[in-house]
Amino acid sequence: MISIKTKITDLFNVKYPIIQAGMVWVSGWKLASAVSNNGGLGLIGSGSMKPELLREHIRDCFSATDKPFGVNIPLLRGDAEDLVNVTIEEGVKIVFSSAGNPKKFIDILKENNITVVHVVPSVKFGLKAEAAGCDTVVGEGVEAGGHNGIDEITTLALIPQLVDSLNIPVIAAGGIADGRGILAALSLGADGVQMGTRFATTVESSAHPNYKKKVIEASDSDTILAFKKIGLVRMIKNEFADKAKVAETEGWKEEELRELLGKKREMMGIFEGNETEGKLEAGQSSGLVKEILTVESLFKKLLKEIEEASNRNDKIIKD
Amino acid sequence: MISIKTKITDLFNVKYPIIQAGMVWVSGWKLASAVSNNGGLGLIGSGSMKPELLREHIRDCFSATDKPFGVNIPLLRGDAEDLVNVTIEEGVKIVFSSAGNPKKFIDILKENNITVVHVVPSVKFGLKAEAAGCDTVVGEGVEAGGHNGIDEITTLALIPQLVDSLNIPVIAAGGIADGRGILAALSLGADGVQMGTRFATTVESSAHPNYKKKVIEASDSDTILAFKKIGLVRMIKNEFADKAKVAETEGWKEEELRELLGKKREMMGIFEGNETEGKLEAGQSSGLVKEILTVESLFKKLLKEIEEASNRNDKIIKD
Repeated sequence: MISIKTKITDLFNVKYPIIQAGMVWVSGWKLASAVSNNGGLGLIGSGSMKPELLREHIRDCFSATDKPFGVNIPLLRGDAEDLVNVTIEEGVKIVFSSAGNPKKFIDILKENNITVVHVVPSVKFGLKAEAAGCDTVVGEGVEAGGHNGIDEITTLALIPQLVDSLNIPVIAAGGIADGRGILAALSLGADGVQMGTRFATTVESSAHPNYKKKVIEASDSDTILAFKKIGLVRMIKNEFADKAKVAETEGWKEEELRELLGKKREMMGIFEGNETEGKLEAGQSSGLVKEILTVESLFKKLLKEIEEASNRNDKIIKD
Repeated sequence: MISIKTKITDLFNVKYPIIQAGMVWVSGWKLASAVSNNGGLGLIGSGSMKPELLREHIRDCFSATDKPFGVNIPLLRGDAEDLVNVTIEEGVKIVFSSAGNPKKFIDILKENNITVVHVVPSVKFGLKAEAAGCDTVVGEGVEAGGHNGIDEITTLALIPQLVDSLNIPVIAAGGIADGRGILAALSLGADGVQMGTRFATTVESSAHPNYKKKVIEASDSDTILAFKKIGLVRMIKNEFADKAKVAETEGWKEEELRELLGKKREMMGIFEGNETEGKLEAGQSSGLVKEILTVESLFKKLLKEIEEASNRNDKIIKD
């Protein structure tokens, strides 16, 4: 089996620079610990948790693995400070922040010797995260599932531009679901990858079986971007997504869009498995996901694919 | 210097699997022959030419290079048949078709021993092109400049899915402007790349100096996608693009959009250099383009970058 050593494996003290995205309703202690136990970096997604539930998941994760893991915290949440405090109190040493200004909590996180990573959709926000004191950034392209940046920059275009603009290492996210994508990201200058959709479709993911089935059935064309005016999101096409598309095409106003979106659509889709009316957040890499695997099998598969793609490059390109 | 050998270098009998996109107002005989003379595959972009002008460019290209070159033909043009006939009559042996059904002219092209390549934005259209008898496809992601597919699939997500679905080789396009991007595309399983924006900003490109300047000044966030209802197009932000964005957000109707678009906006922007009211078609890779180079210097730079990125991968990944 291959070994991979980058600034990201050094920074997090993990075997492989493969990070499982912190996702709502998908990544509790079970998925995060499985990823960490297999040599990647697992993240508990606190976006769908109240602070006390997060505390339970952190404790369970510490029981399930002695390897490093982290917590993803969406900074725009009203109770983000409580999530941050729980994370610090429970002794987690890695925080991925998203959706908000990383400056807000950087001082308290760094005082507690926490490695801080911010998810950014463009060079502009990458520079801001670096200036704020983040240790690394996730550059996330618009092919990613869930929330996206308004400039809709793709991973392939974003990563080399981030790498050229920042001094801190860059993790690539969006559109990556197999070893070929990982090798492509490294080729662009990234030091690691973060994958969401692929990990959401593992045995250990707490997503509903209906959600996993929809990802597996999806082709390359089966996701849409919608809700540009109130927070761009990528999801799998279904009846709800069709309505969102009509709303987008017809130029609905913000309040109309908020009413259509309603509340807890993610929970309905991802956790409760409502295939028609739920918001099934997933990326364009859904078309690459053909089966539900255990995290252990997935890691073996990814490493084999990286090796194969790497050997193919060596065959094609000669000195 | 490295050598690169793939199914695409074999198919076109070229040294490097690097194709210069056929672009309106940019790629006449001068650019195409320079690319072919430097070991890539140059394409004359017939999209902005009347049939008799195309004939002149083909003749001039044959005078300027003894290497293979091709012609790009947009099949939706009213006089596409005339462009096809001129191409056949003048003895060009490679045709890249786009924007339309490749079935339309495949028989006459194949009867004349012409290698036919179709540009596709999704797996669905890739399968159609293969079934029609195309020799290879260009899989073009939504980060590309100019016209794009409605499903807005990115290069990173599209290429491995095309590779898995087709038996013919795949050329990757969209978001690629340096050696890192080329190596990333090969890692995804592509056998070659097509680059537009980067070649549009060479000395030999017939784009107006103002257009080249705008590309060089652009950051990762400086292009937008607009005109979804009448033909999705990516262009650099300017006053015209701002109006197009407002139209998009407000959900304007098709006829209103057509009126805003008007006629010959590409010519105004790319050829005449109207920076504010012209349509400056360019991709998200604009942010990677920092200088105007000769095609010769660009090829040297690309090959060096591929080598560097490849060496970095070899350092990171060990057996």
